[in-house]
Amino acid sequence: MVALSRLALNVATVREQWDLARCIEGCARHGIPGIAPWREGLAEYGLARAARHLRDAGLRVTSLCRAGMFTSGPAAIEETKRAIDEAHTIGAEFLVILAGGLPTGSKDLAAAREIAAQGLAAVVPHARAAGVKLAIEPLHPMTCADRCVISTVAQALDLAGTLGDGVGVALDVYHFWWDPAMEASIAAARGRIFGFHVCDWLVPTRDLVFDRGMMGDGIIDIPRIRALIERAGYDGMIDVEIFSARDWWVRDPDEVLTIIKQRFVSAV
Amino acid sequence: MVALSRLALNVATVREQWDLARCIEGCARHGIPGIAPWREGLAEYGLARAARHLRDAGLRVTSLCRAGMFTSGPAAIEETKRAIDEAHTIGAEFLVILAGGLPTGSKDLAAAREIAAQGLAAVVPHARAAGVKLAIEPLHPMTCADRCVISTVAQALDLAGTLGDGVGVALDVYHFWWDPAMEASIAAARGRIFGFHVCDWLVPTRDLVFDRGMMGDGIIDIPRIRALIERAGYDGMIDVEIFSARDWWVRDPDEVLTIIKQRFVSAV
Repeated sequence: MVALSRLALNVATVREQWDLARCIEGCARHGIPGIAPWREGLAEYGLARAARHLRDAGLRVTSLCRAGMFTSGPAAIEETKRAIDEAHTIGAEFLVILAGGLPTGSKDLAAAREIAAQGLAAVVPHARAAGVKLAIEPLHPMTCADRCVISTVAQALDLAGTLGDGVGVALDVYHFWWDPAMEASIAAARGRIFGFHVCDWLVPTRDLVFDRGMMGDGIIDIPRIRALIERAGYDGMIDVEIFSARDWWVRDPDEVLTIIKQRFVSAV
Repeated sequence: MVALSRLALNVATVREQWDLARCIEGCARHGIPGIAPWREGLAEYGLARAARHLRDAGLRVTSLCRAGMFTSGPAAIEETKRAIDEAHTIGAEFLVILAGGLPTGSKDLAAAREIAAQGLAAVVPHARAAGVKLAIEPLHPMTCADRCVISTVAQALDLAGTLGDGVGVALDVYHFWWDPAMEASIAAARGRIFGFHVCDWLVPTRDLVFDRGMMGDGIIDIPRIRALIERAGYDGMIDVEIFSARDWWVRDPDEVLTIIKQRFVSAV
């Protein structure tokens, strides 16, 4: 059984109901010790005010979501540097990095992957100077074309390995539970696992992005994956991140947080 | 440029408009030399009549779709043996084998994969006796939970390799175009590639199964994949298999076949 002291709310889980201020107050009210804000929420709230509120609420900021998207064009590098500064300001333990999908009009996946690798390499010195860790998040292959050309844990690790200290991976069960190489990849990630995200895979799944399930409602063997990740040396926070247009985004968010706490104990 | 003499119609591409008899006539009328029937169509038409019609039309039967689904229960083994007999009767070059998804109520992916491996091993002697080849088709990871626990080309090859002669793989670009290990896996498949399927990945994709695109309408670099497959020694038929609830299934099938022939030359 996992302790509630490891629970963090990724604010995307209630993004349709609550702004960042309400998420911070909700976590405090429900005794959820960690939070992962998104940049949009910071911008809306104001960075300095958000940072103060997070600090005053005593929340641990597991990560800032998200930057990278290097394949969208060269401006992504400066944008990611700004995100690094924001992550520093709010005291986030790391910044989540997505590669981005195929550039518009391109079918050249190898080239897109190279752009992502070079973009990441270009921001690493800025991240080191700011003391912000970067976590590459591989996304499920079904989002390869339009969101993230880094599709497997092994691939994310290979890239992280070329970039040295301060670059690792964020592992979300949703993206790799199917991977025949999962066990080996997680074992190989020792020392580079910066974050661990949970949710569940619903059967049927009705949307490629916005139909995730609450832990326990789907078919992912989350405790088994948690054990693999802990065996690889990770004992940090566990973020709950559920994009759910048809269910959790249309519920009372206080109910959502209550159920998250129950399922965190019973199904993670 | 690929020759039209390598074109085969997987009848699922027009399954909402035409029964098997009409598909056979359509192929003959459009000068499409190959066809891949589904078992449902054979059952509806009558196996002997279907076999005669296929033969009389002079069509090359690339494969029969499909059997396996071993994780659905022990009856799948006898069902797959019947499918092998049907494949023999219609002179299909191979039978497409899907593993099946997770058994109902199970989250044990390793066990499901073992069930699939054992089920396949159980039907191999029957297939050899009938002179029917078996082609394992890995499906996109997004269908792992409910359709096929064999998710990568490497995984399908590993399984085929344990079973000896007459067992290989069917490679559909839709399922593995994203795979960072694609090049290596295709190269390793030399001698075991029984079939090659094409269609395209649309952006956005609105359904996990029934929203495939016509070759050229999506982002898969099909000619590059074809080159890899040919470099691995495959020069056989190329099946067009498009599940498309919103587009190709609601068009005039003669128009669909006309466009397939154009795109086969321009985009494959």
